[in-house]
Amino acid sequence: MARIAVVAGDGIGPEVVGQARKVLDAVLPGIEATEYDLGAARWHRTGEVLPDAVLDELAGHDAILLGAVGDPTVPPGVLERGLLLKLRFAFDQYVNLRPSRLWPGVTGPLAAVKPGEVDLVVVREGTEGLYAGAGGTLHRDTPAEVATEESLNTRHGVERVIRDAFARAGRRERRKVTLVHKTNVLTHAGSLWSRAFAQVAAEHPDVATEYQHVDAAAMFLVTNPSRYDVVVTDNLFGDILTDIAAAVTGGIGLAASGCINPEGRYPSMFEPVHGSAPDIAGKGVADPVAAVLSAALLLDQLGHADAAARVTAAVATELAGRTPGAPLRTEEVGDRLAGYAVA
Amino acid sequence: MARIAVVAGDGIGPEVVGQARKVLDAVLPGIEATEYDLGAARWHRTGEVLPDAVLDELAGHDAILLGAVGDPTVPPGVLERGLLLKLRFAFDQYVNLRPSRLWPGVTGPLAAVKPGEVDLVVVREGTEGLYAGAGGTLHRDTPAEVATEESLNTRHGVERVIRDAFARAGRRERRKVTLVHKTNVLTHAGSLWSRAFAQVAAEHPDVATEYQHVDAAAMFLVTNPSRYDVVVTDNLFGDILTDIAAAVTGGIGLAASGCINPEGRYPSMFEPVHGSAPDIAGKGVADPVAAVLSAALLLDQLGHADAAARVTAAVATELAGRTPGAPLRTEEVGDRLAGYAVA
Ligand SMILES: CC(C)[C@H](C(=O)O)[C@@H](O)C(=O)O
Ligand SMILES: CC(C)[C@H](C(=O)O)[C@@H](O)C(=O)O
Repeated sequence: MARIAVVAGDGIGPEVVGQARKVLDAVLPGIEATEYDLGAARWHRTGEVLPDAVLDELAGHDAILLGAVGDPTVPPGVLERGLLLKLRFAFDQYVNLRPSRLWPGVTGPLAAVKPGEVDLVVVREGTEGLYAGAGGTLHRDTPAEVATEESLNTRHGVERVIRDAFARAGRRERRKVTLVHKTNVLTHAGSLWSRAFAQVAAEHPDVATEYQHVDAAAMFLVTNPSRYDVVVTDNLFGDILTDIAAAVTGGIGLAASGCINPEGRYPSMFEPVHGSAPDIAGKGVADPVAAVLSAALLLDQLGHADAAARVTAAVATELAGRTPGAPLRTEEVGDRLAGYAVA
Repeated sequence: MARIAVVAGDGIGPEVVGQARKVLDAVLPGIEATEYDLGAARWHRTGEVLPDAVLDELAGHDAILLGAVGDPTVPPGVLERGLLLKLRFAFDQYVNLRPSRLWPGVTGPLAAVKPGEVDLVVVREGTEGLYAGAGGTLHRDTPAEVATEESLNTRHGVERVIRDAFARAGRRERRKVTLVHKTNVLTHAGSLWSRAFAQVAAEHPDVATEYQHVDAAAMFLVTNPSRYDVVVTDNLFGDILTDIAAAVTGGIGLAASGCINPEGRYPSMFEPVHGSAPDIAGKGVADPVAAVLSAALLLDQLGHADAAARVTAAVATELAGRTPGAPLRTEEVGDRLAGYAVA
């Protein structure tokens, strides 16, 4: 039976993760879940972000379910670099998977795009690029200060995530992969991405391909999101594009993500794209759909495609039945989803 | 009298620049304009991108009006790095100014946002960051290949563009500046930007401030673009955010930009955000509004605030009179705009 580690985290994290576990237990009874106390609260209490012993324990699980970590009182970077990115890098989660659908029942912000018309997935590289942490500062707080950030890209890292994107596209109906980069300015990294993309594309004659600059892709996600099927891109571009994709499909309240180590050598991690939302924490009004959809990605990754499909269908039922603007209660949504999933 | 250099460029560049010049001549008779043949066509013909002698001549002008350069047959980076970015860097155009308004008469893609409700300007840094060209490749075309891109940020470069943003905000009604960065991941550059921002903000107690991560800003530009007044950000983030801002305000057909050296030590450059659009080139159907609005920014920069205001008002009249979806003719739009501007 699957052994998962649960990091509920801060703010609305515990509320939404609670519903995701409810749904997981419903579709796959007997999952063994261990809770880990990590995030802003622990940092405030103990000064610890991610002790090595905890990292080792997490490594022994099949997957990690994460709610949200952070709050405005923690200095920027402490939890992001010390916890979230540390896990992504330590567990070699090089596929950061972010599907976006405009679900029937959801009103998106775009006048011309109707439910059902957007169904894309961004395959964001998760272990390289500007997220490598390769930067520095000289002459801090003087007029001569200089600060650098370096984007590191390896053939190894770029090629494997592109391969994953093509494999996913091959299993989808439209079979199309869009590479997004900024090859006209970032000529070194851009060339590496383009050449690796061309090589992998040549091995997949059944998959259609296109290339777009990141600025153009950001624009087309707003003017014509339906054109995308699978998008593969680097770590930072993927961060930005997936928030746009979330926005045009009804907001980050619905956006799921997986940080995946496809080979299963390390645990993959699943988390809603949204943050800890301290403003609504504890009120029981957070939408658990993103966390529940993240749990569906978890099930899929662990080989329970059937259970994953049931959870996804439950979400579809829930969203189709919503009245736009009507208030929701986190617990009630979780109960309904668990019910639909086993019906 | 103003001496301007005109780089009409490729594709629709000459068509739209023709209208911008028509309007300039109407509101400020006697402008001395010299044409420079640069872009894809020249590169194909001669292999030259931007000869030093031409750069020297351009430096002798008060401003540069640029249409669009490039076409798909030129390898990525050749014209971007060799011409556009070379000019921005050589002429120290550190303020890349990109206003976005949802004009009355224009139907944007967002169902909930009405004309008049968006009026923001992005002050994008233009001479640093990932655009510095500091990157490299090792072991090209082998499994060991690594490619880097470095973001270089100086206190000098960051502080001056932030100062410009605050000065602009001080002249606007809402007096608000939003800093956009990714301080939680790019901790070195992010810290430099944050500290410089805090210092300049302290000197402007009359200007409201906020900070957003770039992914959140990309999302809010879609869900609530009205919240922005002046946005200041780095070179790459500005590239992406301004295309989103253009998309939500009716498309890059309307988006103007200025690459400005505020001290006037070097010529500033004004260009529509759109590219050369080879697919519609020569058909006389390109919308010249972005080029004409860029000419208005040029007038403003050269101290002709009055003429600039007349051009902007002419655009407002033109757009208010358009029927959504009706075809337009580049020449006719230019004639109308020139007429409105002198009426
Ligand atoms: C919190 C932050 C480190 C993270 C990222 O930038 O990847 C978040 O924005 C995300 O998209 O998961
Ligand atoms: C063509 C390219 C170099 C340029 C940029 O990235 O700055 C363009 O996208 C822009 O926004 O002006």
